[in-house]
Amino acid sequence: MPDSSDAAPIPDDESPSLSASDAAISRRNLPEPAVGRLSLYYRELYRLRDAGTHSINSRELGKLVNVSPAVVRRDLSALGTIGRRGVGYTVELLIEAIGGVLGSGHQWQVILVGVGSLGDALLRYRGFERLGFRLVSALDANPDRIGTSIGGVRVRDASELAQVLSDFSPDLAILAVPAEKAGEVAGELVAGGITGILNFAPTTLRLSSAIAVVNVDLASELQRLAFSVQQRK
Amino acid sequence: MPDSSDAAPIPDDESPSLSASDAAISRRNLPEPAVGRLSLYYRELYRLRDAGTHSINSRELGKLVNVSPAVVRRDLSALGTIGRRGVGYTVELLIEAIGGVLGSGHQWQVILVGVGSLGDALLRYRGFERLGFRLVSALDANPDRIGTSIGGVRVRDASELAQVLSDFSPDLAILAVPAEKAGEVAGELVAGGITGILNFAPTTLRLSSAIAVVNVDLASELQRLAFSVQQRK
Repeated sequence: MPDSSDAAPIPDDESPSLSASDAAISRRNLPEPAVGRLSLYYRELYRLRDAGTHSINSRELGKLVNVSPAVVRRDLSALGTIGRRGVGYTVELLIEAIGGVLGSGHQWQVILVGVGSLGDALLRYRGFERLGFRLVSALDANPDRIGTSIGGVRVRDASELAQVLSDFSPDLAILAVPAEKAGEVAGELVAGGITGILNFAPTTLRLSSAIAVVNVDLASELQRLAFSVQQRK
Repeated sequence: MPDSSDAAPIPDDESPSLSASDAAISRRNLPEPAVGRLSLYYRELYRLRDAGTHSINSRELGKLVNVSPAVVRRDLSALGTIGRRGVGYTVELLIEAIGGVLGSGHQWQVILVGVGSLGDALLRYRGFERLGFRLVSALDANPDRIGTSIGGVRVRDASELAQVLSDFSPDLAILAVPAEKAGEVAGELVAGGITGILNFAPTTLRLSSAIAVVNVDLASELQRLAFSVQQRK
């Protein structure tokens, strides 16, 4: 697997992992697309580790995520000097370093507001936990949902939101309520100390720039796809 | 609502809508982020039309999607000359023009493969139809799902995929199967004439560049959010 064209040259024999402050430094320099790619590398590296692979080079890793080896090397060099010339990268160390930068070293407490069919799917989704995201509570206004347990999480009454925020002090919230409710709920989340919102409601949240928001609009994703198909014609 | 600083100057009194070939031309020049923003404008314009609003200027539209008026004007000028100095934009014409560029003038036939909890949520999602996306069929391998009807769509046996592709000649497919099945199913979809895939499976599809793929990985979106929260600290 290793190839000699790979990785940043390191005179030293050691492959140091990143310290917390290294991670903080490299975080500032990472452009948005690189963050997306690191997340994809991370996903593949997890799979490789599960399959018993110990090392990988930039060509192999690039192939797994449809990215050129040069881009892989550039992205990973932003993490510090974690590759070894002629050996490539140690899967375990890469997972640690990327996880550190992406914040998966931290245990993130997450709450879900809105348990419709999408919220239901999110509660059942098994991909969050191992990335360090723990769904600690879910809330909905529908009496048929309240009190049920989905994916191991009990659904609480939406009116208890302030109490839930105070009990768990979650970092992040997933917002899966209808568009017309989203602004009001987002305001309550921020007032309760939430610093990041993953917003599935098809509307633009207008919040202080201190609050991080990532929007996922399923219909917009289909539009992007249709656009991309037309461009290829 | 109109303000005089708004829109590209048009000497003519008419606000022409875009012809199909105009749309094809402007499509080539649109960078990816502009496509995403057009999709957001489109969403807000629909809401405005439903609320009875007839015209809007770039400042107002920008405010609705957290974008500066200058960016709005630049994005919309790529659609051709559809604004009027001192009047702003006609909501109806903007919807038509953006819809044309994004491909929502076309009726897209879409199939869904994989009716787990996410697939279930996608079938119940009401945001696709009015953007021109019609879910014509859904398939799953789970006997408990096969034959049930969700969101008005009957779930068929996954083994009938080739038949479904031949019956409906769909343009697009939504892939919501487990990662380990995704590559195989994607291959069958492409063999059956699908030209675009919205991929929810947490894996990178390796397909011909003639096939458009948009990936949505829910765990990666949470990672992006956590990264963004850390950057603000």
